[in-house]
Amino acid sequence: MTVVLGPNRYGKAETRLVRVVRDGGVHHIKDVNVSSALSGAMEEAHLTGDNAAVLPTDTQKNTVYALARKHGVDQIEDFALLLARHYVDSQPSIHHARVEIEEYFWDRIGEGEDSRPPGERHSFVRSGGEVRTCVVHHDRDGGTTVTSGLEDLVVLNSTGSEFSGFIRDEYTTLAPTHDRVLATAVSARWRHLSAEGCFGTSYSEVRRCLLEAFAGTHSLSLQQTLYAMGRRVLETRGEICEVRLAMPNKHHFLVDLTPFGLDNPNEVFYAADRPYGLIEGTVLDAAAPGAGFAWE
Amino acid sequence: MTVVLGPNRYGKAETRLVRVVRDGGVHHIKDVNVSSALSGAMEEAHLTGDNAAVLPTDTQKNTVYALARKHGVDQIEDFALLLARHYVDSQPSIHHARVEIEEYFWDRIGEGEDSRPPGERHSFVRSGGEVRTCVVHHDRDGGTTVTSGLEDLVVLNSTGSEFSGFIRDEYTTLAPTHDRVLATAVSARWRHLSAEGCFGTSYSEVRRCLLEAFAGTHSLSLQQTLYAMGRRVLETRGEICEVRLAMPNKHHFLVDLTPFGLDNPNEVFYAADRPYGLIEGTVLDAAAPGAGFAWE
Amino acid sequence: MTVVLGPNRYGKAETRLVRVVRDGGVHHIKDVNVSSALSGAMEEAHLTGDNAAVLPTDTQKNTVYALARKHGVDQIEDFALLLARHYVDSQPSIHHARVEIEEYFWDRIGEGEDSRPPGERHSFVRSGGEVRTCVVHHDRDGGTTVTSGLEDLVVLNSTGSEFSGFIRDEYTTLAPTHDRVLATAVSARWRHLSAEGCFGTSYSEVRRCLLEAFAGTHSLSLQQTLYAMGRRVLETRGEICEVRLAMPNKHHFLVDLTPFGLDNPNEVFYAADRPYGLIEGTVLDAAAPGAGFAWE
Amino acid sequence: MTVVLGPNRYGKAETRLVRVVRDGGVHHIKDVNVSSALSGAMEEAHLTGDNAAVLPTDTQKNTVYALARKHGVDQIEDFALLLARHYVDSQPSIHHARVEIEEYFWDRIGEGEDSRPPGERHSFVRSGGEVRTCVVHHDRDGGTTVTSGLEDLVVLNSTGSEFSGFIRDEYTTLAPTHDRVLATAVSARWRHLSAEGCFGTSYSEVRRCLLEAFAGTHSLSLQQTLYAMGRRVLETRGEICEVRLAMPNKHHFLVDLTPFGLDNPNEVFYAADRPYGLIEGTVLDAAAPGAGFAWE
Repeated sequence: MTVVLGPNRYGKAETRLVRVVRDGGVHHIKDVNVSSALSGAMEEAHLTGDNAAVLPTDTQKNTVYALARKHGVDQIEDFALLLARHYVDSQPSIHHARVEIEEYFWDRIGEGEDSRPPGERHSFVRSGGEVRTCVVHHDRDGGTTVTSGLEDLVVLNSTGSEFSGFIRDEYTTLAPTHDRVLATAVSARWRHLSAEGCFGTSYSEVRRCLLEAFAGTHSLSLQQTLYAMGRRVLETRGEICEVRLAMPNKHHFLVDLTPFGLDNPNEVFYAADRPYGLIEGTVLDAAAPGAGFAWE
Repeated sequence: MTVVLGPNRYGKAETRLVRVVRDGGVHHIKDVNVSSALSGAMEEAHLTGDNAAVLPTDTQKNTVYALARKHGVDQIEDFALLLARHYVDSQPSIHHARVEIEEYFWDRIGEGEDSRPPGERHSFVRSGGEVRTCVVHHDRDGGTTVTSGLEDLVVLNSTGSEFSGFIRDEYTTLAPTHDRVLATAVSARWRHLSAEGCFGTSYSEVRRCLLEAFAGTHSLSLQQTLYAMGRRVLETRGEICEVRLAMPNKHHFLVDLTPFGLDNPNEVFYAADRPYGLIEGTVLDAAAPGAGFAWE
Repeated sequence: MTVVLGPNRYGKAETRLVRVVRDGGVHHIKDVNVSSALSGAMEEAHLTGDNAAVLPTDTQKNTVYALARKHGVDQIEDFALLLARHYVDSQPSIHHARVEIEEYFWDRIGEGEDSRPPGERHSFVRSGGEVRTCVVHHDRDGGTTVTSGLEDLVVLNSTGSEFSGFIRDEYTTLAPTHDRVLATAVSARWRHLSAEGCFGTSYSEVRRCLLEAFAGTHSLSLQQTLYAMGRRVLETRGEICEVRLAMPNKHHFLVDLTPFGLDNPNEVFYAADRPYGLIEGTVLDAAAPGAGFAWE
Repeated sequence: MTVVLGPNRYGKAETRLVRVVRDGGVHHIKDVNVSSALSGAMEEAHLTGDNAAVLPTDTQKNTVYALARKHGVDQIEDFALLLARHYVDSQPSIHHARVEIEEYFWDRIGEGEDSRPPGERHSFVRSGGEVRTCVVHHDRDGGTTVTSGLEDLVVLNSTGSEFSGFIRDEYTTLAPTHDRVLATAVSARWRHLSAEGCFGTSYSEVRRCLLEAFAGTHSLSLQQTLYAMGRRVLETRGEICEVRLAMPNKHHFLVDLTPFGLDNPNEVFYAADRPYGLIEGTVLDAAAPGAGFAWE
């Protein structure tokens, strides 16, 4: 037996950064969560505890704050690229950087609830909905990849969903249905062809494609809906070459009210927690370049 | 020592109910979480295990679904009143019912993301923001109380907040500040004077008052902001006689960038998790009637 | 309408403190989470934002750490008393202090997994189980109260539990059972007669009483089990005058395997999440002194 | 652009199963959470919504319960293998099955807290600690892989940990230390050479190796500790060929008490939540066979 060190990385996870930009009396806020993971010539740290090649994770935290002040934070993909390149460029021992950022959204408290003049409004309410994400890899020799994504986009179709024609084996008790509630929490990531892009527009448009396809697909299975969502993104957004989706089937079971002398014409549902279906799939351009480390 | 049974109650917690209403091709959804707790002549269940006075919690779950089908679910306060009265009226052993409901909000996926005609849209996206709540008590002899509330309304002022002039003791290191970020997750409950009300309008307007006062108050302390929020509700909404607020101070600490040769003019903040300040207070009409069991 | 300020308090929540005591080569660790809430002459902070009566929550955090260094942390009730008295005694504006502490348990990594001599072992593993808690109130004029407690003590009886003889109304479908799995996550608090006590021994013995009564009671209802647990504590521990318990019925439903030609003699269960029964009750000495603010 | 379907799978996640085995009056409980994911000839479900190749996720849930009754549940790896082989063997469209199981541990309530004779004890307390896990893959053509693991094994060394000699760049402010608290929540998975094994013994022994190496390593970096833990497993357990570890550095920061005139000789620490260091690494036998899909 020869014990060896395999793939490894280390970094600072979940550095919480809020940046306030003051455009005269009008403020803007950016609320992000940054995680960096570095790798390279790090064998000695593992084998002997010699840290000469190790940039402390505490320094990575400081770097996030310092670069946010120096360069600002606009699109999360751009800030992730800035950080990843900084690490690889500044230290010979760091050959590869992975930077992941989550962004949380806030809405300005508007005219209805804020009686001040527009130029003096600096109050915000967190808009719960989904979290925007990105993962950037930058490698000294292997190039740069960018994926964007979102988490916790919870959607529901109250009709227009069926499930029938499936395998029936000895353990199957499910009845086919031609009208059910379909609900899921979309978790999606998509791969950009290039590290140079208009990531803000791209995000908004991909999100729109996902919602459009979810809403507009008469669903015979959640698999079909998933594929339609990925395809819509690819056919609409030329900058994207691959989409990966994970969609739990958040079951809404029709409650049996017959013991109480009541019918239930798809009106009253029990929203279950566990277990849940889980559908995962990749939709891609057949001509997409190799993904390399993009999904790691 | 004489051991006795003190206050007690039992019930079914977190019955998840989603109701779909079909108004022609246009659907509406109601997504709630119902918890009931009953009390009364329940000594024997505790002392001897004789359950003759106990309506099973499983029955309470069934009742939620059956009454939702029979009577619909519009404002959560009204549905809670319906349930509470049902329990007390239908069983001699049940003297008191407490019903708590949480409501989760969904937005219709709109024109921008759904290309179908308005009359055929039945797709929704969960609007993360706050949770609407209510607690209703109905007592055979002691009457009925209604409180409404919200949880997790996360708000932030990027300026217009100070904190100074406080006590300085031997353990005080905090510097006074005249411009800080103020952020909190508002948890609020308010007491209605009557069990008959337009609870939908009331909710929207109380929420507006809370946001207005949060946004419009130049804050010298979070206590001052809390009080202003409660006062605004009471002065605006005649149907409310008492407001209780719990507001964590979600600290946003200005990052010290001087080690890196950078200033930080209220731009880059660290959003901390723990510890956090926690401000709790009640604002009420001096002439409010006694609350009885309303807050239990 | 005359708007007035009602009950209020403020403080620092969840100050996480880990203390290492070095007894020669043998170390001990204490892992706690401290929350303080102060009240008194605080009207001005609410009404005008004048903070002259306010000891900053940041100072409360500092105080926790400084007093831990000065006086150590042994039993959490004693440390809570120390803090509460410190606040009330040191500032005229603070009339009342509430201090809540959670304690997390660690086990020393033992002989089986640590080959070093006992005197050189300083490695620990977190023992997931329950969290120990306490809430202390100290009031300038109203005295001192101590409650202790625990959270998340998850217990299960695989037999010896029944539920039958309950009310059957039009919404009841539950079948009576004479052999079911009974599982719950005990949440308990108990009130001490005195603020002077051997809180470590008391905790261990109360916990033992709760487990004994849970295990040793043939249960006709969870209410009966709850009452037996509280009674056991009161009858055994003279320092305790009141016990409050909240016990969710963590349903384990027998799976119907008849569609697959299988019986299921109380062997295979589905552990459900929601909804769940929730049983809450108080058991007390009929001669217990008034609780005052002890449970607030 | 030619849009194609890439890797995909679907299944039922988090089927909660509790099994009670009655060995005379002595009961044993097994508490697990089963997730299955199937793949194969599933294109049509995605492309056209034709579900003829789809075994419903509801059936997968039923299968878990039925096979638990038919074959029992002993070691989770064996039950996962049983399920995975069942799916692939029973349906031509299913070419590959991935089954993941989590196991939660319970301790029998013992002599000290249960006064009944040993043969009549059927009461248990959940032993919080770590979760045991496994992931099994079975492929029609590609063979079978087994990984085992654990989550949330939280460990702490109160001394014997250093961190120094690291890179100092312009953003580095961290001081080197030669005595710090080192704490982490070990998340580990390890790959078995064979699908036939004594998985119960293997789990206990691997866990012991991990604890021994954590406790027994004078740590110059968390990387060094991680590697030592993986190496210990490989050198001790011949059935294991690869170990993957993810270990957050749960920072315990020494509190600066000098403003209060107090020293702090490694006694009082602040346990921070975020950000945290995150160290991930693989340790393997250089001669290990290819992992195939084992880690997917």
